[in-house]
Amino acid sequence: MSERVREILSWYRSDNPGTLSNLARLLNHGRLGGTGKLVILPVDQGFEHGPARSFAPNPAGYDPRYHFELGITAGCNAYAAPLGFLEAGAADFAGEIPLILKLNNSDSLSPGGDPCPALTGSVNDALRLGCSAIGFTIYPASTQRNEMYGQIRELTEEAKAAGLAVVVWSYPRGSAISKEGETAIDVVAYAAQIACQLGAHIVKVKPPTAHIEQAAAKKIYEKERIPVATLADRIRHVVQSAFGGRRITIFSGGEAKETSAIFDEIRGIRDGGGFGSIIGRNSFQRPKKDAIEFLGAVMDLYAGKTK
Amino acid sequence: MSERVREILSWYRSDNPGTLSNLARLLNHGRLGGTGKLVILPVDQGFEHGPARSFAPNPAGYDPRYHFELGITAGCNAYAAPLGFLEAGAADFAGEIPLILKLNNSDSLSPGGDPCPALTGSVNDALRLGCSAIGFTIYPASTQRNEMYGQIRELTEEAKAAGLAVVVWSYPRGSAISKEGETAIDVVAYAAQIACQLGAHIVKVKPPTAHIEQAAAKKIYEKERIPVATLADRIRHVVQSAFGGRRITIFSGGEAKETSAIFDEIRGIRDGGGFGSIIGRNSFQRPKKDAIEFLGAVMDLYAGKTK
Amino acid sequence: MSERVREILSWYRSDNPGTLSNLARLLNHGRLGGTGKLVILPVDQGFEHGPARSFAPNPAGYDPRYHFELGITAGCNAYAAPLGFLEAGAADFAGEIPLILKLNNSDSLSPGGDPCPALTGSVNDALRLGCSAIGFTIYPASTQRNEMYGQIRELTEEAKAAGLAVVVWSYPRGSAISKEGETAIDVVAYAAQIACQLGAHIVKVKPPTAHIEQAAAKKIYEKERIPVATLADRIRHVVQSAFGGRRITIFSGGEAKETSAIFDEIRGIRDGGGFGSIIGRNSFQRPKKDAIEFLGAVMDLYAGKTK
Amino acid sequence: MSERVREILSWYRSDNPGTLSNLARLLNHGRLGGTGKLVILPVDQGFEHGPARSFAPNPAGYDPRYHFELGITAGCNAYAAPLGFLEAGAADFAGEIPLILKLNNSDSLSPGGDPCPALTGSVNDALRLGCSAIGFTIYPASTQRNEMYGQIRELTEEAKAAGLAVVVWSYPRGSAISKEGETAIDVVAYAAQIACQLGAHIVKVKPPTAHIEQAAAKKIYEKERIPVATLADRIRHVVQSAFGGRRITIFSGGEAKETSAIFDEIRGIRDGGGFGSIIGRNSFQRPKKDAIEFLGAVMDLYAGKTK
Amino acid sequence: MSERVREILSWYRSDNPGTLSNLARLLNHGRLGGTGKLVILPVDQGFEHGPARSFAPNPAGYDPRYHFELGITAGCNAYAAPLGFLEAGAADFAGEIPLILKLNNSDSLSPGGDPCPALTGSVNDALRLGCSAIGFTIYPASTQRNEMYGQIRELTEEAKAAGLAVVVWSYPRGSAISKEGETAIDVVAYAAQIACQLGAHIVKVKPPTAHIEQAAAKKIYEKERIPVATLADRIRHVVQSAFGGRRITIFSGGEAKETSAIFDEIRGIRDGGGFGSIIGRNSFQRPKKDAIEFLGAVMDLYAGKTK
Repeated sequence: MSERVREILSWYRSDNPGTLSNLARLLNHGRLGGTGKLVILPVDQGFEHGPARSFAPNPAGYDPRYHFELGITAGCNAYAAPLGFLEAGAADFAGEIPLILKLNNSDSLSPGGDPCPALTGSVNDALRLGCSAIGFTIYPASTQRNEMYGQIRELTEEAKAAGLAVVVWSYPRGSAISKEGETAIDVVAYAAQIACQLGAHIVKVKPPTAHIEQAAAKKIYEKERIPVATLADRIRHVVQSAFGGRRITIFSGGEAKETSAIFDEIRGIRDGGGFGSIIGRNSFQRPKKDAIEFLGAVMDLYAGKTK
Repeated sequence: MSERVREILSWYRSDNPGTLSNLARLLNHGRLGGTGKLVILPVDQGFEHGPARSFAPNPAGYDPRYHFELGITAGCNAYAAPLGFLEAGAADFAGEIPLILKLNNSDSLSPGGDPCPALTGSVNDALRLGCSAIGFTIYPASTQRNEMYGQIRELTEEAKAAGLAVVVWSYPRGSAISKEGETAIDVVAYAAQIACQLGAHIVKVKPPTAHIEQAAAKKIYEKERIPVATLADRIRHVVQSAFGGRRITIFSGGEAKETSAIFDEIRGIRDGGGFGSIIGRNSFQRPKKDAIEFLGAVMDLYAGKTK
Repeated sequence: MSERVREILSWYRSDNPGTLSNLARLLNHGRLGGTGKLVILPVDQGFEHGPARSFAPNPAGYDPRYHFELGITAGCNAYAAPLGFLEAGAADFAGEIPLILKLNNSDSLSPGGDPCPALTGSVNDALRLGCSAIGFTIYPASTQRNEMYGQIRELTEEAKAAGLAVVVWSYPRGSAISKEGETAIDVVAYAAQIACQLGAHIVKVKPPTAHIEQAAAKKIYEKERIPVATLADRIRHVVQSAFGGRRITIFSGGEAKETSAIFDEIRGIRDGGGFGSIIGRNSFQRPKKDAIEFLGAVMDLYAGKTK
Repeated sequence: MSERVREILSWYRSDNPGTLSNLARLLNHGRLGGTGKLVILPVDQGFEHGPARSFAPNPAGYDPRYHFELGITAGCNAYAAPLGFLEAGAADFAGEIPLILKLNNSDSLSPGGDPCPALTGSVNDALRLGCSAIGFTIYPASTQRNEMYGQIRELTEEAKAAGLAVVVWSYPRGSAISKEGETAIDVVAYAAQIACQLGAHIVKVKPPTAHIEQAAAKKIYEKERIPVATLADRIRHVVQSAFGGRRITIFSGGEAKETSAIFDEIRGIRDGGGFGSIIGRNSFQRPKKDAIEFLGAVMDLYAGKTK
Repeated sequence: MSERVREILSWYRSDNPGTLSNLARLLNHGRLGGTGKLVILPVDQGFEHGPARSFAPNPAGYDPRYHFELGITAGCNAYAAPLGFLEAGAADFAGEIPLILKLNNSDSLSPGGDPCPALTGSVNDALRLGCSAIGFTIYPASTQRNEMYGQIRELTEEAKAAGLAVVVWSYPRGSAISKEGETAIDVVAYAAQIACQLGAHIVKVKPPTAHIEQAAAKKIYEKERIPVATLADRIRHVVQSAFGGRRITIFSGGEAKETSAIFDEIRGIRDGGGFGSIIGRNSFQRPKKDAIEFLGAVMDLYAGKTK
């Protein structure tokens, strides 16, 4: 066990040995194993955006086995997906990569309004499939937030008792904030705090912009001169907002974009003290060889092997 | 056990032996037993459309025993019906044909609005009646989808633990899409993906048209030049969307129509790699002798005995 | 055990011996015992319409013991009432008449809108009071039907496991149909089908009129020339709609009317193959002697002792 | 055990010995013990109207011990209050007076609309505090009645299984009736019937006026010439509506008024066959000595020691 | 055990020894231990107002360990926080300060409307983290009060059975009262009463103003000449409203303000017989040394060491 992983685990001393072991599995697996950094492969886009939009650019991805293989070969720390995708490979690839079962998901066939995903899996499902963690999305700023907070509260209690880790996707969205506000620095920092207070071990947020959404927050950011000019500044503030850096905070990649832009973003996350990335479409929509190369480059950035 | 059935079962290796056995029962029973193809007899129309509209054309069908006999004699792989219809024959025909208990149903006496069927049975009911599977209808695109997804999630967990298979009817319908969109190729492929992600072993969708409903999807279909011109093309895309063909996808017959039109549709499903059909009104509303002949012809098409 | 009762019980072979015994108790008790016909005394009007409207015409009925005595003396097959009325006599009259505990009820103090009765008792209550069956009202065509269907589904599963029989009052009512439609032949037949599909052993509907409510149904009734001209025709169609006559279907008496009109209605039910009647206000609002005479005459009609 | 108490207990023969014992405790305690009459002290006004409006007129009542002492010294049959008030004295006064735990309550800080109290205690709370009964308020005529009926149904089942008695406050109120209708004779009689049908052992209603609220009821009251001219007439009708007098029906005192007016009301209740009174504000808002004298006078009226 | 603590514990004689022990822990810990007074450190602002608004003024507070250390060093009676903050230190500081797990919280990203916090922890969480009490916020005057009262009812029952103490934050807020009414003397006194009746051991309310919100209350305050001119008067009335002073009532500090104003407020609370304060922002937003000095001064005021 590396010193850094030992240090990170020390932040979670209230958890039972089962959960600590699963956190260790996530931190020790793959190319970044032992560094305290994580790159996770998430594939929930089939449910969230539909199969063609997700897999037609690289049709190998229609087959659920493809993503297990990609995650394993690329050396990701973990692979996260909804029930069906994990069931379709968990036995074949048992023990080859830590799994995160996403327990709620939204589809794009659904009518608008303030978002609230459907529950699509359980802690028991995660256990029977050999997963290391559960994943769950909350949408702070939605009128339905209490429903989601109540669900994750219950699932978190159950997961921790069963020795699983808890990963929370915290994406502010809904009628209480503007579209621009969804990635505002104050809102993203707040989203990280909420996920931590709800008991998440690992928090996933979006890379924040310099926009400040809430008037009451703006006053403080200005008065206390919190630096938000560069991405690294903002990442640093988000990491600080996640219990002074004592919770693992990782960042999503978002929509497909140019590779160099992604690398710049990774550098910002790394320099600000972020713990890593969750990269879906930007990896599995490329041909496998490219994806492996691309993910390797991202990991090298995090590992400090490249600048 | 045929090689093909063995292959199909290999896609479900995360399931317990109980569920694998019940999937094998469905695949090995009847005239198509062992071919990997299925023709299932469903009779839920008494609940869904009322008794006269369902059974007056062939009044023998008022008697629940009729459908057991039809399914058995015609050599269907399974017979699917709501609680009452199965209770009225399960003891008399015990062990003669695999049964699927439909756990939710809608009636036509009910007011409009976005659809959500009523729960009308349980996993325990399926077990006490000797069923091999539960059946469940979801309506993606309904404002009430979360309710349905949450119900099937819970029932699926319970059914799998009890060694049952899960068949999901996935019919997009509701205020988020147009009437034409209900059978649009992008929407049907998405509906198949959702059912698979929710953990279905067998997915039932409608034969899709070449219409594309969602703008975001249309862009991809055009860019990636996904073939949708013929029914076989579209079936192939739907089957691919069901985990690269690693989930059993079957198709509904829909409203009664001319026999030759049905046979053409079956050819399209077969040629596109579909796993079979669920045929209700087109079978039980004919006189028994005609229905048996008709179902035999359909099975011969699937078995490749006729073109 | 008479041949006819044996035959009726054979329709319920999926049920456990406990439930079969209770069905046998209902069929074998009283003046019609063994004939396969039933006349049941229901007294839920105190809750449904208030005490004065129910009992002032014959004040002996304020006392809950009165109805036990009436049902026993008149030789009814069973006595059905809500929790309070059964509790007030179940110990005193233990074993003297089969009891049906009505598990939901509506009061007339309540505001309008689509109906959904309140739950007022449980399967455990039925067991501790020594009942043979539970009773439950559903209102198809109400916007709240899913609530009621879900409740009876759960109660039915529980009751059958506990060896009780299930009696469903199926009364279409609500914003999806017209007032006239509540007793339309297509709607009543559909209501019987729904109750059977939900797993009822005994279905209670209203005597239907020749009106046809739903356009889609009307087309079939005309095309298939389903006879609906006489009450006997219509009863025959309703009984056929209840699983081809393989479920016990009985009919309510409705509002108090002239005795000769009631007898005519009974003849129609009998000639159409109906299994009997549930008669409340028309019996307990008469003086006891008259009521016994009246119920005796009804039973004689069903028994074929009179025309 | 007096003959009268023995007779009253005989009405509840469906209950278990635990519940019969607790009913006996209520009937045998205090100055009216053994007479079959009850005067109960209820103090829920702190929750319902706020502390100052309830206790400022006699500040000793801010202290929860005061009411235990008042009930004990005055010789009331029982003391009824919400969770907090009972917890604050149940140990100190254990075994000195039968206790009724009120399980739901409304506060006056809450917005209007059709009433539905909050649940504020449980059957387990009643048991651990040594109570003899649970108390519960229903508001027939409220759009939320099904919620309340469902709650009391469940609590009643649980209480009876645990050997407790059930006291129901039945106060029609809500959008389905007029303000005047809340105490109309037809409505109060109906409210008593509903509580009895829901399984209450003891029913508490308001003294009714001669007003008749519902048109359908008015027709019967006139046709059957039900006497409603005097309070005694109306009480007699309400008691009859409570299962022909075979359920204990007691009456509330309502707002503070002149003592002589209260005594007149008590005489009416007594002469009509009412079983007693629940008297809150009219007792605890007087100085203790006055209250004891006043309650003694009320009890003497019920006991027939004075006219 | 001091006489005063013994006396206070005597008010809770209905509770089990586990709960009494935990109340004793709260009363005996820290600089005020044994005096019967309490100063509690609550840090839920990260969730309620966001991280920057809460911790940027004193960035040491981003780290959850900071607040444990502050509470311990300053000699507070207890430290209260949501799940995440307690989990992040409960093991490291086990046994060093009594903990209160706040089980519900609201965030400021959420849309407006009548307030109802989300559930964010459970009694089991409190037990596994070694807490002495649960904390819960109710908002009387909100349309959603029944939801909150129902939740705390259930949690209170569970907590008391598990030997925990219950602390209720009672903050009237919502469409039934004005903004000014939230701290009106009648409303605050009523809020204290409600919390006590719901079974709270410790009640936290805001220091009240002399405003009287409700017309029905105003009449009584004037008639009975309840003194409300000075803060001490009003505190005295609130304490009296909390079961005649037999429940521990403490007061919140509210928004940051000048230190001398706070000391004046503490004097008012002390002179009116209040049991202490909960002080969040006014302590943890100061530099640690200042905060310790400040909290020490507050405690000296309560202990009577200074005026």
